[in-house]
Amino acid sequence: MCQLLGMNCNTPTDIVFSFEGFRRRGGLTAEHADGWGIAFFEDAGCRLFLDYLPSSSSPVADLVRSYPIKSKNVISHIRKATQGVINLANTHPFQRELWGKYWIFAHNGNLTELAKLEPSRFQPVGNTDSEQAFCWLLDQLAQQFSVMPSRIELHQALSRIAAQLAQHGCCNFLLSNGETLWAHCSTALHYIVRQAPFTVAHLSDMDLTVDFSNETRPNDRVAVIATQPLTDNETWTAMQPGELLMFVDGEIQKT
Amino acid sequence: MCQLLGMNCNTPTDIVFSFEGFRRRGGLTAEHADGWGIAFFEDAGCRLFLDYLPSSSSPVADLVRSYPIKSKNVISHIRKATQGVINLANTHPFQRELWGKYWIFAHNGNLTELAKLEPSRFQPVGNTDSEQAFCWLLDQLAQQFSVMPSRIELHQALSRIAAQLAQHGCCNFLLSNGETLWAHCSTALHYIVRQAPFTVAHLSDMDLTVDFSNETRPNDRVAVIATQPLTDNETWTAMQPGELLMFVDGEIQKT
Repeated sequence: MCQLLGMNCNTPTDIVFSFEGFRRRGGLTAEHADGWGIAFFEDAGCRLFLDYLPSSSSPVADLVRSYPIKSKNVISHIRKATQGVINLANTHPFQRELWGKYWIFAHNGNLTELAKLEPSRFQPVGNTDSEQAFCWLLDQLAQQFSVMPSRIELHQALSRIAAQLAQHGCCNFLLSNGETLWAHCSTALHYIVRQAPFTVAHLSDMDLTVDFSNETRPNDRVAVIATQPLTDNETWTAMQPGELLMFVDGEIQKT
Repeated sequence: MCQLLGMNCNTPTDIVFSFEGFRRRGGLTAEHADGWGIAFFEDAGCRLFLDYLPSSSSPVADLVRSYPIKSKNVISHIRKATQGVINLANTHPFQRELWGKYWIFAHNGNLTELAKLEPSRFQPVGNTDSEQAFCWLLDQLAQQFSVMPSRIELHQALSRIAAQLAQHGCCNFLLSNGETLWAHCSTALHYIVRQAPFTVAHLSDMDLTVDFSNETRPNDRVAVIATQPLTDNETWTAMQPGELLMFVDGEIQKT
């Protein structure tokens, strides 16, 4: 099983604190050492950093720490290979373009009977179940909508698509188009929304503390989603199996 | 006008020497300071590093120097904005997936009357003429071939497509699917093929010398393509206006 990390904010924010704990799960505090990746949306653009080295020792991960990119939507993934060899083509997150928007997807789980999820327009480059599921998901969206629909219509469509994917196995995933971040839980996803009054947070994976009241402005709001809680002194909410949440501007949108 | 750099090899090779001179054109030895990017194919996978900071001072460019990624196909671009504001979405190279392969494209020039190059399946995310041309190019390929055709068929199709693009203005471009690298010249592209016996090369943009005989094996072959020659003691070949060359395993393929 892999580890997922997502961030959705109302103002561009760096993910250095959360990533510092998260990356240690790639080879130090957990065994997920089969590559990693992180995608930062910056307005319509997107930067995707991938490496097949463990995130705990990757030079690319060092860059992410030393060059704090500010973003409203971030998705990161640390891989423990279940299907597909360890190489760059099989490293999450995956990126495609649909309706003139970049879409980023990362998956934790194991899907089977993939012959029933044969994509057409979007084709996997590597040989993971995850990338095939992503391509099939985008195919479904492209078939249903010729231009990008409203957020609510997208959410309704993704709810149906995620439920179909989940019939094939464990399907925790994060998905974003740079405006909205969707989180789907099969077995394990937790989230926290940080907003004023900001407090002090302490990482679970290393002895590092940050006082968010020194790092933020009063109106800032940041949602962080992770496979397991990243801090040991805050209250994270466990998502329910089958639940699909839509985060916009750092908060859950009602549907 | 922007600056292009491409490399195509028969064995995975790092581009550190060429990139060290090339990056200086982004803000130091030339004025192309409106962002830059570099794409490395590694088998089917691809790593794309983008930054809107000048390449001469970018932390991401520092990473490319300190973490020498070995690749058989590399495309890099330094931007001097002509159309489209300076942001990540407008930063070359651009990436899309077609037929289960990643395609990378970078362009130097200025195209007009883009309404005649309206793409459908592939849509630009930013607002440059270059990304629109790339999307249109892929649309043409996707319409002509439902699965990836032979290299020769691709070359013939790209010859027609490049000629159509060139009717809209200056169209120097580099394109690769990780197996083949195409270079199209409208006004300025130069190349060199390095193979045994390897010699000493000296950069034009800084006082740096490398003795390739110490860095290579006898059977290595590396083609480097750049807007302007990167070294001042080797013989580069100027491409002709309208010429499309196809590089495979470090050499030009006859068509």
